[in-house]
Parts: sequence; structure tokens; C-alpha cells
Amino acid sequence: MFEAFWRETGDAAELVIPGWQTMSYFSDVGNVCWFMEPLFDQQVRRLHRTVGNAAVDGYHVLVGTGSTQLFMAALYALSPADADQPTSVVSTAPYYSSYPAVTDFLRSGLFRWAGDANSFVGDSYIELVCSPNNPDGAIRDAVLSSGAGKAVHDLAYYWPQYTPITRRADHDIMLFTVSKSTGHAGTRIGWALVKDREVARRMTKFVELNTIGVSKDSQLRAAKVLGAVSDGYDVGGGGASRHRLFDFGRRKMVERWRMLREAAAASGAFSLPAETSGQCNFANETAANNPAFAWLRCDREDVEDCAGFLRGHKILTRSGNQFGADPRYVRVSMLDRDDAYDIFISRLASLK
Amino acid sequence: MFEAFWRETGDAAELVIPGWQTMSYFSDVGNVCWFMEPLFDQQVRRLHRTVGNAAVDGYHVLVGTGSTQLFMAALYALSPADADQPTSVVSTAPYYSSYPAVTDFLRSGLFRWAGDANSFVGDSYIELVCSPNNPDGAIRDAVLSSGAGKAVHDLAYYWPQYTPITRRADHDIMLFTVSKSTGHAGTRIGWALVKDREVARRMTKFVELNTIGVSKDSQLRAAKVLGAVSDGYDVGGGGASRHRLFDFGRRKMVERWRMLREAAAASGAFSLPAETSGQCNFANETAANNPAFAWLRCDREDVEDCAGFLRGHKILTRSGNQFGADPRYVRVSMLDRDDAYDIFISRLASLK
Repeated sequence: MFEAFWRETGDAAELVIPGWQTMSYFSDVGNVCWFMEPLFDQQVRRLHRTVGNAAVDGYHVLVGTGSTQLFMAALYALSPADADQPTSVVSTAPYYSSYPAVTDFLRSGLFRWAGDANSFVGDSYIELVCSPNNPDGAIRDAVLSSGAGKAVHDLAYYWPQYTPITRRADHDIMLFTVSKSTGHAGTRIGWALVKDREVARRMTKFVELNTIGVSKDSQLRAAKVLGAVSDGYDVGGGGASRHRLFDFGRRKMVERWRMLREAAAASGAFSLPAETSGQCNFANETAANNPAFAWLRCDREDVEDCAGFLRGHKILTRSGNQFGADPRYVRVSMLDRDDAYDIFISRLASLK
Repeated sequence: MFEAFWRETGDAAELVIPGWQTMSYFSDVGNVCWFMEPLFDQQVRRLHRTVGNAAVDGYHVLVGTGSTQLFMAALYALSPADADQPTSVVSTAPYYSSYPAVTDFLRSGLFRWAGDANSFVGDSYIELVCSPNNPDGAIRDAVLSSGAGKAVHDLAYYWPQYTPITRRADHDIMLFTVSKSTGHAGTRIGWALVKDREVARRMTKFVELNTIGVSKDSQLRAAKVLGAVSDGYDVGGGGASRHRLFDFGRRKMVERWRMLREAAAASGAFSLPAETSGQCNFANETAANNPAFAWLRCDREDVEDCAGFLRGHKILTRSGNQFGADPRYVRVSMLDRDDAYDIFISRLASLK
């Protein structure tokens, strides 16, 4: 969806790497995250200051191979190494389907998926808080609050194209990724903002043991791309340009949600979460919540498996039960290419 | 150590990526390894055909974030998901110190480090075979041979600059990495050659769950670099040039090993593995084994901790006990920068 934007920016986000560059394992031996390129660190902090969506002062920036690796790194860092039982990992349903899969695929003795946070009983846990939430776009806060419990905030979608920036988030561990902020999923670069130095050290240790660091080439490319995004809004520095990613993304998302709500109304067989809005401190205006996913419910009495029903009409979605929810719901991606999205809309509108 | 070579190659290995390129998660949906760039696959196969160190026909190529990720992927793929006990992971001592660390850091219920392969008793296991071996450069074969057992061959150092290419390896699972073949550790790109499609599928699943694929930017850079190496020897295609990586690397390693043996002799306090050689099918001549690491033994009666003794003389090494061996031994890297290596040599020679 963002490709059209980056085609227009010309060489502003072009990366050139000579054959002899960034050959070493090391990038910044003085940093807790010794394999992180200083330029990436700088551009991450600069973009958060530009957008105002997360605090960076007093935080350690950590780079990961996508935010998935940093998600595992956080579980590793927050699980007591000497515990005789795996630490329980929970999240409020509907929760991102990858959370249970990634938590349990290696059957770790350190942590284990324990389901819906609302039904969890105990003091020791790791609560995953995704806000705006994947799959339903809800704005979330942690629901558990034990002294021994920890929270990991997955803020992959807390950017102006998806939701109003209502406050500067300042949680202990916050995860972000270029795949959702700029659209560069293929670079596999994510980052974490971490308050506690020991947690940052253990998360870094995980990435060291897992992949001995993170691609320098992609770190430099991400730095270039994030820098180009900040440049678009750099009024003070005079760098402000007509290439403004969040404006482009916001226009796209508003248009796609309008199309989707019209299609659902035309069909009459589906319902969507009610539109919410808030004051966006970044845009300085009231803005609607335009989630990257649509949490679609089939209202037909005779349909209990919405994903199966839609598949029968050549619409591919992910079933609600993968998110710990009712299979009458499905998750639909709102970030597909224009042509694919248009086909989806026309097919949905035609369903009665 | 290889940086000087790549500085000389000019733009032959330079990578340029526009801001809009390789944004997707997907690279080749028809391939078992759906996130692998076809160009990377092609250049990996081409280089192995050029060097003759490994068979590629009938093999699946898989890309990983360094070979460490593919090492974990192999453990995941070879461990029965339904086993009530973790599969035992073994390797002949002295073994690479990361093998136990990477195998056990998540306390997986699927696999568990079980130490020296020579003292292992049982039918079900995964044997790690590193050849030439890290840390001692020995040429190795699997020592276990049960029908239920599996082997993973780590061939990171099976390249002409380190050892004679005596045969085209054709094991079930073979791991390689650009960090040791071309020196590009910072790109974090490794690859696996896998015979069995189901094993390849499960290894791919591991990378999917762990990092949702591998940096496209680094895959394209690795393809460019591997292609430049093959070009250097592409006599038939007329592309053969004065830039021949393995010739450069071989000269470097021969020189460094000469310096090290002289220093050890001058000191009199250390001994090294005996030099071995063999017929190299790639160079078409008899060539010596020039390991990327020196397995140095301190012969002084009063020194039981060689690493500690050397640290006292400002020489940093890794102790033998980290490799499941006698602490009278240490591992010394032979791939450091020229200036650092020269300092090490002079300090070692001065020790009595």
C-alpha cells in the first residue's frame, strides 16, 4: 500500500552500500545493544520526537529482526531464569494469532502461553498489550496489575495513519516495526524502547544467541527510510516537503474504511466495530481510528464460520478462533495493494 | 581481514536499493523457502558449483539470519514434535562453544544439549559435525551412526582459503555463512542445503515463526557479493578477473599461520596442532589446512588456565573449557584485522 508513496520520493530513501562496508559483527561496542548502527538509533529517536507517539529520553533503543524477534527477546528477558514453572504469557482476546504461536513453538521452559488476560488468575505473568489492537483496532491498556507481573506494549500500529496520537506512550517496554510504520516489511527491522538497563541487556543477549545481531544493511536502510519520513515534517530544519508519509497513509486508510463501511452496508450481512475518533496531537485535529485490520462480523443466522463462508466467495480472511474469539468474526487486512483491495470490496458488497 | 580485498573490487559488489524496492514479506511464493530472493538462491548454487565444496543438485536452498538461526531451525526440524523427552544434541569435543549455549538458552522441550558425542549412549540424537572444526580445525565426520539419529553438518569453514577442497560434500543438512566465506558478518546471511523437502519445510517454518523471514536487503547484498566471488573464477564466461577472493584469503591465511608457528617456536611455551594438507580439487594442487582459529596449548607446567595466563599478558582468547576441553587450551581467532593480529603475534613470541 505504501509502495506508491516511496516510488514518488525518488532517491530520498535510496540505499547505496559498497562491498567493503559494514562487514563486522559489531556496530557500537559502547552501547548495550552492541550490534545496533548508531545512525538507526538516532533516526528512531528523531522520528518518535517528530510524531510524539512514544517517549525516547531515558530509554534504551534496541534493534531486532522485525518486532517478532524482539517480542521473543522480551519474553526471554522478563522470565525469571531460576523459576521452576514457565512464566504465563497472556493477552486480552481477541489477541494477535501469532502471540500464542511464537510463545509456544519451541516449548520453552521459561515462558508458556496462558490465553486471555481477563481470565488469568495469578501474580506472575507477562501481559502483551497491543494498541491499537491486532485484530480489532481497539485502543488498549493492561488489564492485569500485580506487582510481580510485567507488561510488553506492542505499539506497531500506534502511528498517525492508523489512529490519533493522543498521548506520548511511556511504558517499560514498547515494540515498533518499519513494516507497519513505513511499509518496509521486507527489511525485517523492528525496534524496542526499553526503560530498564538490565532488561535491555537480557533482550540484547537473546538477539545475540538467536542471530548474533541484526542485518547492518537493513539497519542502514531503515535509518534512511525513517530519516526520509522525518524530513517530510522537518519544518524547523526547512526540510519539510510534499512527501509526507503519514498524510499519504491517513488519506489511504480513511478512503479504504469509507469503502469498507459502504460495502458492509450494501451487503447488510456484516457489521464492523463502531468508528471512534480522538484529538491527534500530531495532526492537531480530531482524527478517526483507521485500523490496519478490519474485524468483520457475519450477522447471518446460518453462518457460524465466517471465514469459511467468505472463502466460498473467494475472499480470504483469518478466522476469529485464531484470535481466541468467535468464528463469526474474521480479520481482514486493510493494507493490501489497491487492486486486490478493490476486488475484495466489490465481492463483499455483493454478498447478501 | 577480507576488507582490503573488497575495497579493491570497486563497485563489483556494491548494492543499490531504491526506497520502494523489496517492501513485501514475500519473495518467491512457489518456493519452500517463500521469503528467499531467487537471485540469492541462484548465486549460492553458482558459487558451490564454482568451488565444488558441496552438492546443490537435488537440494533445497534455505536462507537464514546467519547460520546460527538455521542451526536452531535444524534442531527444531529434526526434533519429533510428539516426543515426551527433548532430543539429545551432541558434538565431538572440542566443540564450538555456541552449540550448547544456543541449544539450551530457551530451555526448549524439543531438544537439549547432551555434550560430547563420543560419550553419548542412545539411539535418538542430533549430532553436530563441524568440519573443518571450530575451534581446532580438525577435518571431521559423524561419530554416531544410529538409524534414528540425525546429523547436521556445519561447513562454515569448508572454503579454499581455510582448507583443501577434497570432496563435494553431500550430507542431508549442510550449513554455510557469508561471514566466513566472504567476510560479510554484518549482513547476517547464512544458508542451508537440505535434501529432504519436509525437513526444509519445517526449517522454513522455524524462521517464519522466529523472524518472519530474512532481510531482503541483505539477501540481495549477499547475492551481489557471492556473484562477484564467482565472477573472479568465471574463466568460461570470460569474467575471470584479478580479483580472486579465495586466492587472496589463502595467501593471508598461509602467511598468518607461518607467523603464528614462528611465534610459538620463538616462545617455546606453546604448541599447535600439527599442520595437515591434502589435494585441493579447486586449486588443483596440494594445499595446507589453514584453520580460521588456532587451538593453542600452553605447555608450561605452572599454567593450568591458559586463557587467564594470556589475559595477564594482554592477549584475549577463549578458554578450552568453553569448548568442552582442557583449560590448558585456548582458541585464538586467525581472522582479526592485520594490525591487531601483528600485536598478538609479537606478544605471544615474547612469552617464555
